[in-house]
Amino acid sequence: MNMKAPRGTNDVLPGEVKKWQYIESVIKNICDRFHYEEIRTPLFEHTEVFQRGVGDSTDIVQKEMYTFQDRGGRSITLRPEGTAAVVRAFVENKLYGSPIQPVKLFYFMQMFRYERPQQGRMRQLNQFGVEVLGSADPAVDAEAIALAMTVYQELGLKSLKLVINSLGDKESRKSYRQALVEHFSPHKDELCTDCQTRLTQNPLRILDCKKDRDHPAMQTAPSILDYLNEASAQYFEQVKEYLTLMDIPFTVDKNLVRGLDYYNHTSFEIMSDAEGFGAITTLTGGGRYNGLTEELGGPDTPGIGFGMGIERLLLALEAENIEIPVDNNLECYFVSVGDEADKQAVRLVHDLRKHGIQVDKDYQGRKMKAQFKSADRLHAKFVIILGEEELAKQVATIKSMETGDQHETPLSRLVEQMKELLQGGNA
Amino acid sequence: MNMKAPRGTNDVLPGEVKKWQYIESVIKNICDRFHYEEIRTPLFEHTEVFQRGVGDSTDIVQKEMYTFQDRGGRSITLRPEGTAAVVRAFVENKLYGSPIQPVKLFYFMQMFRYERPQQGRMRQLNQFGVEVLGSADPAVDAEAIALAMTVYQELGLKSLKLVINSLGDKESRKSYRQALVEHFSPHKDELCTDCQTRLTQNPLRILDCKKDRDHPAMQTAPSILDYLNEASAQYFEQVKEYLTLMDIPFTVDKNLVRGLDYYNHTSFEIMSDAEGFGAITTLTGGGRYNGLTEELGGPDTPGIGFGMGIERLLLALEAENIEIPVDNNLECYFVSVGDEADKQAVRLVHDLRKHGIQVDKDYQGRKMKAQFKSADRLHAKFVIILGEEELAKQVATIKSMETGDQHETPLSRLVEQMKELLQGGNA
Repeated sequence: MNMKAPRGTNDVLPGEVKKWQYIESVIKNICDRFHYEEIRTPLFEHTEVFQRGVGDSTDIVQKEMYTFQDRGGRSITLRPEGTAAVVRAFVENKLYGSPIQPVKLFYFMQMFRYERPQQGRMRQLNQFGVEVLGSADPAVDAEAIALAMTVYQELGLKSLKLVINSLGDKESRKSYRQALVEHFSPHKDELCTDCQTRLTQNPLRILDCKKDRDHPAMQTAPSILDYLNEASAQYFEQVKEYLTLMDIPFTVDKNLVRGLDYYNHTSFEIMSDAEGFGAITTLTGGGRYNGLTEELGGPDTPGIGFGMGIERLLLALEAENIEIPVDNNLECYFVSVGDEADKQAVRLVHDLRKHGIQVDKDYQGRKMKAQFKSADRLHAKFVIILGEEELAKQVATIKSMETGDQHETPLSRLVEQMKELLQGGNA
Repeated sequence: MNMKAPRGTNDVLPGEVKKWQYIESVIKNICDRFHYEEIRTPLFEHTEVFQRGVGDSTDIVQKEMYTFQDRGGRSITLRPEGTAAVVRAFVENKLYGSPIQPVKLFYFMQMFRYERPQQGRMRQLNQFGVEVLGSADPAVDAEAIALAMTVYQELGLKSLKLVINSLGDKESRKSYRQALVEHFSPHKDELCTDCQTRLTQNPLRILDCKKDRDHPAMQTAPSILDYLNEASAQYFEQVKEYLTLMDIPFTVDKNLVRGLDYYNHTSFEIMSDAEGFGAITTLTGGGRYNGLTEELGGPDTPGIGFGMGIERLLLALEAENIEIPVDNNLECYFVSVGDEADKQAVRLVHDLRKHGIQVDKDYQGRKMKAQFKSADRLHAKFVIILGEEELAKQVATIKSMETGDQHETPLSRLVEQMKELLQGGNA
């Protein structure tokens, strides 16, 4: 009998969940200011969507997808990343026909990757991401990067490092690929078996290889930046100029090629070099993917986006000792003593709640003293007491847990009185 | 090439998504007042969790689950309902040991059921739900019901019908089962094959059968309410009394047994009889499930919960012609003319956003007139204009789209000025 959460998945429990809610509310607020709207896509897609949209030669598609047959015999895959799913939705729902262009989208999604679980790398992981479709303006690239940076900055992260690169357009990539093949071919037998395959399938990804990282040919490999044609070089210059105008520091890393097949032009990563991490850690990766909409059956539409891991973000906050502001106080706790008072408590508590007041009561048949203990545990600002004596007078005693002050209020005025006390900031 | 969302699943697109966000914010606010905290569990569980937690004899487990083997050969099932998953998390994380009891949880979850898709019945569906674990106080049953009713009421639904029933405790159910077997056995051959199986496995579920609904033996079947032992009858009386105290109207339906195996004591449904629906439609179903924690490997803990379909809720709001309040206005649109102004726009827009102002700009290289058209389409309250003339003077022109008034402001005061205008409610 296996009654544990599947390996590589997590429960987010009360307490901890407040951190997630806080981060999500900060992000939503920023997306609102940047005028990005939310999109939600299904948890799974037809497998082809990811095969075509992520790329057959990627690790994700080859090794990490949760793929299965549904009861109708269709091949279905749990979403391993967001871009392909959002672009599928963009095409299927014909958002390219919307009068408002570009279409600026954000999402919170769970992703699923069958990897070896480790810190910050789960089989079910959570990502915030954005996708902008329909504009080839380098200012959009800068805007997306600025949005990601704003999220980290407003959450308080300091040890951030933004690296950018350009993969150029198709033409630039073609000549660069050729140069890479020529460069690495003499060393083919010395490279790992994955890289030997990459040499014919996708030579750019050799630069990403962790196994061959220290091979001397890596250090002398040609740089994409030397192979950009004029339009691509100018595009990259503009992105950099916009980042500078927005006062966002960056460094250029010519080896930043990223693992997904469909990237072109701008490619970027935001990393944390906080001491708490031990090693530099990628928090967000993204880039431009002009051409992906066509791959997924739509009209040719430029696009750019990024994905930001929430688990990694939480680790980064921890690594920098940033405390997430979380409110653990309860407005009121209702203490009742005696059968009739217990009953009336049900009515009065519901009445307070209907009028906007946060209140809880005992459901364990506890004695008065234990009820007060619950109120303390829940950090109640006020305790409302209804005993036999109060009931006879049709009043309740309200006690401020901060000052210890208490006074009686007619039951008919209880809602009003509590509203006044809570608004007055008396707690 | 199949590039559509899988059958029975939906994208929630910008525009539509604002309705979802609104509903979720109302629900979260109510959960906060009732002092329920969010829990998040993985999208899938080991299949045993649902086999034991929902019940082997249910349609869900027998026919509707998305079950597959992961790459490690484990049998995994996409969550078909919330209770078993939450109870698994409660047991695994030992929440029964928390000093605050009962544990009052809520969730927003996607559920997956391989059913024939139809209106309001999707293969990926969204539910809000609550689970309260650790209290056997009938006031908790009433509270959970009151919470669900409050959600519907605050969203404006009027055509609501709450039906409740009691399935009693183990002893009561045992004698009732016996009575049902005796009642239906003479008619066994006239019942559908499912009910013939149910007669031995779970005779209560015969009362739920849609095929045999009109069989005469259904009308004369014994009522569970006649088989409640004294403790169960008293429990049910108290739930009804609390509902009455909270001014929540209900009717008792002795045939309300619900499809899940683990229910006991209170069982309830909230239905809509809005004309727009055609037929009466269940919006929420729930009940008490003392004993389920044991089934999932934990200590004996009482529990109660419900699941509320969000798709159904949206249909109910539509059926009653209730409009969801959604804000489609943009605070500012930034219009720029000329190369240098376009560049400065990137900087100024970012500055406004960093200071809390919602602003968008053109990313399509549009001329001034077309930029104003975008501002109109986005219902911009203010347009900020930066042309060559303004740039030379280091000012921007701010135009109120409501009044048509416009004036110049120094660029150095732009953020401050926009804050004042937006707070002043001048739009």
